[in-house]
Amino acid sequence: MPKLESMTSIRRFSLALLLAPAIAGAQAIPASTRANADKLLTAALADTLAWHRLAEMTDTYGNRLSGSASLEHAMDWILTGLKADGFANVRGEPVMVPHWVRGAESLTLHTPRETPIVMLGLGGSVGTPAGGITAPVLVVKSFDDLTAHAAQAKGKIVLFDAPFRTDLDPMAGYEATVVYRGNGAVAAAKVGAVAAIIRSIESFSIRSPHTGATRYDATTPKIPIAAISIEDAEMLHRMQERGQPMSLTLKMEAQTLPDAPSRNVVAELVGSEHPDEVVVISGHIDSWDVGNGAMDDGGGAFAAWEAVRLMKELGLKPKRTIRVVMWTNEENGGRGGRGYHDAHKAELGKHVAAIESDNGVFSPDGFRFQGSDNGLAAAQAIAQLLAPIKATKMEKGGAEADVGPIIREGVPGFALDVDDTRYFWFHHSIGDTMAVIDRAEFQRCIGAMAVLAYTLADLPQAIPR
Amino acid sequence: MPKLESMTSIRRFSLALLLAPAIAGAQAIPASTRANADKLLTAALADTLAWHRLAEMTDTYGNRLSGSASLEHAMDWILTGLKADGFANVRGEPVMVPHWVRGAESLTLHTPRETPIVMLGLGGSVGTPAGGITAPVLVVKSFDDLTAHAAQAKGKIVLFDAPFRTDLDPMAGYEATVVYRGNGAVAAAKVGAVAAIIRSIESFSIRSPHTGATRYDATTPKIPIAAISIEDAEMLHRMQERGQPMSLTLKMEAQTLPDAPSRNVVAELVGSEHPDEVVVISGHIDSWDVGNGAMDDGGGAFAAWEAVRLMKELGLKPKRTIRVVMWTNEENGGRGGRGYHDAHKAELGKHVAAIESDNGVFSPDGFRFQGSDNGLAAAQAIAQLLAPIKATKMEKGGAEADVGPIIREGVPGFALDVDDTRYFWFHHSIGDTMAVIDRAEFQRCIGAMAVLAYTLADLPQAIPR
Repeated sequence: MPKLESMTSIRRFSLALLLAPAIAGAQAIPASTRANADKLLTAALADTLAWHRLAEMTDTYGNRLSGSASLEHAMDWILTGLKADGFANVRGEPVMVPHWVRGAESLTLHTPRETPIVMLGLGGSVGTPAGGITAPVLVVKSFDDLTAHAAQAKGKIVLFDAPFRTDLDPMAGYEATVVYRGNGAVAAAKVGAVAAIIRSIESFSIRSPHTGATRYDATTPKIPIAAISIEDAEMLHRMQERGQPMSLTLKMEAQTLPDAPSRNVVAELVGSEHPDEVVVISGHIDSWDVGNGAMDDGGGAFAAWEAVRLMKELGLKPKRTIRVVMWTNEENGGRGGRGYHDAHKAELGKHVAAIESDNGVFSPDGFRFQGSDNGLAAAQAIAQLLAPIKATKMEKGGAEADVGPIIREGVPGFALDVDDTRYFWFHHSIGDTMAVIDRAEFQRCIGAMAVLAYTLADLPQAIPR
Repeated sequence: MPKLESMTSIRRFSLALLLAPAIAGAQAIPASTRANADKLLTAALADTLAWHRLAEMTDTYGNRLSGSASLEHAMDWILTGLKADGFANVRGEPVMVPHWVRGAESLTLHTPRETPIVMLGLGGSVGTPAGGITAPVLVVKSFDDLTAHAAQAKGKIVLFDAPFRTDLDPMAGYEATVVYRGNGAVAAAKVGAVAAIIRSIESFSIRSPHTGATRYDATTPKIPIAAISIEDAEMLHRMQERGQPMSLTLKMEAQTLPDAPSRNVVAELVGSEHPDEVVVISGHIDSWDVGNGAMDDGGGAFAAWEAVRLMKELGLKPKRTIRVVMWTNEENGGRGGRGYHDAHKAELGKHVAAIESDNGVFSPDGFRFQGSDNGLAAAQAIAQLLAPIKATKMEKGGAEADVGPIIREGVPGFALDVDDTRYFWFHHSIGDTMAVIDRAEFQRCIGAMAVLAYTLADLPQAIPR
């Protein structure tokens, strides 16, 4: 049984929880901070600039794969906008990024009928010989099924028809299935396949394949790998079940070029009392080379930008520096996040928090938090400021990829948590466009990001690590 | 105030309605007919053959535009299946059909950025010169908007960005918008445009354009016309609003060849008492030349087939002949329906009813009825037999296109009425595949078609015209 002093302390803590809207961990959220957070939220809910800027950027530059001119042109456009907004210390922080290019590609079914099949090569895949690879097809349901039919795989194109786990929540369903994208080529090559195809990692499709990064290992021959839609994977599977002979020709010009220069785009609202203490608020600018990268992750990057621009517009001067970071190379390398870690290693002790949105700017529920229990308690108090938009969720969970390297150094991490029901309808596909970005949902995401970042930067003391 | 005799008649009619499950208009539905209808429904709800046959046909032959080899090969396969099932009088009834071919086609945006835009030429469109048509773009919201900007249209490619009316039910929304597909080329040519593009007539898109038939008139120059997705129409519209200069190149090899031979596929279950009296049950086999035509209208055609095959399997012998008709050329000509009318004109007086499913085999609500009030009362009584699957809706409404010519001669018409919420997500697009066909919903459609056709064929008297 605890001593009296501890009991008092527990009672005090319970009282703090009951008064959560006014208390962040051991410290009160000052009335002025609360009032400003409320103003920010109101401004975000009326915001139209971010949607129009995101539309203009994605319409004008399109998709933005690492190494592409469109990524760098989009970054130049963003840098110009940040300067026009009056941000401080606007800059591109250089990093070298992988440079994979798709080239022309096609998949053709020859028997039982001659027809093109909509496909997307996976990012990082090797190409085929110029004449393509023509081979019969072996359809398997899983890695175990491939093992069971390993003797039939030699010389074949192996299709993994592993359905998205729709019995789980969307992100868990994705994580349970995306192993086929990551490891399909290696697994198929190990049993002698000449190429691999996956059923796209998608929860719904209108005949739309989804790309994404694949991997090779050092000891297995590299074979090309591509994705097809749910519909075509199921069709080929049915053909096999019927005993219809099937052959395919896969042609891919994909290749990996030497690393290319890119940048993390950075801009600041300098803190009024502790300019050396930093709250990072972020999303990534790079995208896959299909669609327009509006959802993944233009929306997240522009929510971060707009959250801080609104502070400037309202004349808010938080105590700590808020640093907008729009990452490069989230999709196929993570060089942006690692580059930031390396360049800012000496300052990480004074990084108060790192926020990222990278699950779409759908209706926000709140944030996932990656840090200590004390940090979580402080974060939960801040989350109560988002009660007007019902985005008060603040639970332990994984942060997003780009902030990973600095979170692993002890920086408390926050990931915007949204209703991702439709995220895997569009993710890494030609369907990732502005049509996915609901204006009202985007406004609430901007509001949630702004309130969290501002409060973290304006509290009397930094939240506990 | 009515006379006593009339009052009695009204009371009698009301009583008939109250006893609706047992009465068809003035006649009772015999207990044996009711029992057999119930057996049919039970069998349909356990049916798997139709789904697998539809999958095999659509997988093996793909889409089936009028004039294509795939349509005729699919018909040969169906005829073989009908004979194997033991249907009587299995035959293809010849008709000549329009023969439009798409050829290669593309749409490329040049400014503000160079990018291909996913497109589909509209059926019946003329092609472009071999080098394509390159021109600046005028985006309009409607025909009225085009009239208001007529002076700016000369030499341009006109884009009609007219959104699908999602404030209406799906079919009404379609009908309110499809005028742009039908008349867009003529309206644009009249004001000097060199080509026309429409926002696809679709209620949801994953960057998926939808084709469909367009029209020309005799006095206006024929210009090519194509469809793009919601997403790209909105993007081009935003570019115009921003003042970004836009130019496009449209290339289409589309052409109309001489009419080609095709067939209506016909098979019968011959009536035991009145073999010369006919209930037609139908759907169309032809489709657009994209997707696999599983929803539009393979599912409807195969529901008709399976409905009657189940009667044969159960050994049912209705009094009248039930004639399965799988139409050709619904999509771009209506020659199947008109050809049947012409070939069977002398028998139409003995056509008791004509049923068609052509709105997808989604969850059925019942039927729309096109005929007299007395006919409707009889039909409503039959619909009560579908209470176990909650498909008892029987209301006046338009029948489907292929049965139109014989309905206009007085044959009572029935259209399967379904939950078409998602119909215009897939219609006339590459997304029309087996993935759209829910097995349980398809079973209920087969059940509804079977019960209606059987009862109409087995009643002591034909339902009133």
